[in-house]
Amino acid sequence: MSDKWLESLATVDAQSGYELAIKLSRMAVKYTQPSDEMRNKLRPDYGENADSLIAVSQVVAINFQTVSAANNYWRS
Amino acid sequence: MSDKWLESLATVDAQSGYELAIKLSRMAVKYTQPSDEMRNKLRPDYGENADSLIAVSQVVAINFQTVSAANNYWRS
Amino acid sequence: MSDKWLESLATVDAQSGYELAIKLSRMAVKYTQPSDEMRNKLRPDYGENADSLIAVSQVVAINFQTVSAANNYWRS
Amino acid sequence: MSDKWLESLATVDAQSGYELAIKLSRMAVKYTQPSDEMRNKLRPDYGENADSLIAVSQVVAINFQTVSAANNYWRS
Amino acid sequence: MSDKWLESLATVDAQSGYELAIKLSRMAVKYTQPSDEMRNKLRPDYGENADSLIAVSQVVAINFQTVSAANNYWRS
Amino acid sequence: MSDKWLESLATVDAQSGYELAIKLSRMAVKYTQPSDEMRNKLRPDYGENADSLIAVSQVVAINFQTVSAANNYWRS
Repeated sequence: MSDKWLESLATVDAQSGYELAIKLSRMAVKYTQPSDEMRNKLRPDYGENADSLIAVSQVVAINFQTVSAANNYWRS
Repeated sequence: MSDKWLESLATVDAQSGYELAIKLSRMAVKYTQPSDEMRNKLRPDYGENADSLIAVSQVVAINFQTVSAANNYWRS
Repeated sequence: MSDKWLESLATVDAQSGYELAIKLSRMAVKYTQPSDEMRNKLRPDYGENADSLIAVSQVVAINFQTVSAANNYWRS
Repeated sequence: MSDKWLESLATVDAQSGYELAIKLSRMAVKYTQPSDEMRNKLRPDYGENADSLIAVSQVVAINFQTVSAANNYWRS
Repeated sequence: MSDKWLESLATVDAQSGYELAIKLSRMAVKYTQPSDEMRNKLRPDYGENADSLIAVSQVVAINFQTVSAANNYWRS
Repeated sequence: MSDKWLESLATVDAQSGYELAIKLSRMAVKYTQPSDEMRNKLRPDYGENADSLIAVSQVVAINFQTVSAANNYWRS
């Protein structure tokens, strides 16, 4: 993947940091399964499954730890 | 999601930090499955399943690490 | 949940910190499934299942990281 | 559980720290399922199952992070 | 495995750090299952399975924490 | 297990740190299932299963966090 999709871990506030964590979580899937068609096909498999959604939330939580630390927790 | 739902990771005490961790855990699900109807439909799938509840607790634990560190563990 | 159940992450020693980690692990389940009756009904599902017990132990381990850091690892 | 089983996170070296991490991993199971008989009954369920053993190893890894940090990684 | 495949955790920016995290995630699989043929055979098992892809994303998230901390979060 | 198998978390470089993380991941399995025969019997169960290999990779990632921190990320 030669596109530039991640400039920095710095974000203006906690919520945009959380949204970056979501993006980071999705990108690993994209690197592993580059086909847009296949990923779209799999969407109902996790979007309508409670355990899959909890697992997604776990990945976001781990990435949010990273982004939060990178931003010194947006402490003023 | 353009709503502002996260102002800061700072909380007044440990318990409200824990409650913020719960909110953070739920928001990733909401970003991934924005339909209120679908999320409500899935509720019994995890609310009445021991392994799902343990998985929820794990996500909260990870987010609570982040919130606790952000608040310097509410050390006085 | 308006009850006060978490005063602080500070504990007198490592073992009581571990016991606080267990409490933290259980509280996320209680927030997600507030019915005492349902939680009691689910008890054998995880208490007599090796994989569920290992998963419980993992949640406790994550919360114990938080409590240990909060207490500076009870270093004297 | 009123017994004293954890005096400190300090250990003399990395290997005894690893062994403490194993003990910490087991204790959460004991708190959740206090019956020795039941735990013994469950032993083959995880001891002869690859995925369960990997899960055990994950819990130990998390606890070993805690013990290692507590001991400042046994840096001399 | 006697090949040199990891020179350093230092990367020029966050995106290349993320790509290193992906490499680190794959290498553990390679150490555990050295057969290229077998790993190729398993590819559809995870590449076309939503839960497996989420699990991959989780491993990448953990390794990205390590790489990010190693690079001091690429703070300028 | 009275053998000495872990002298230190210090390694000469990142790759040998990664290999130590693999060893740490395997040792928890060995402590839990000491029978060489049983562990060998279980090898195909995880070596030929994508989800098991991803789970192995996750344990290695967690241990690699510990080893990396112990070595101050091999920063020169």
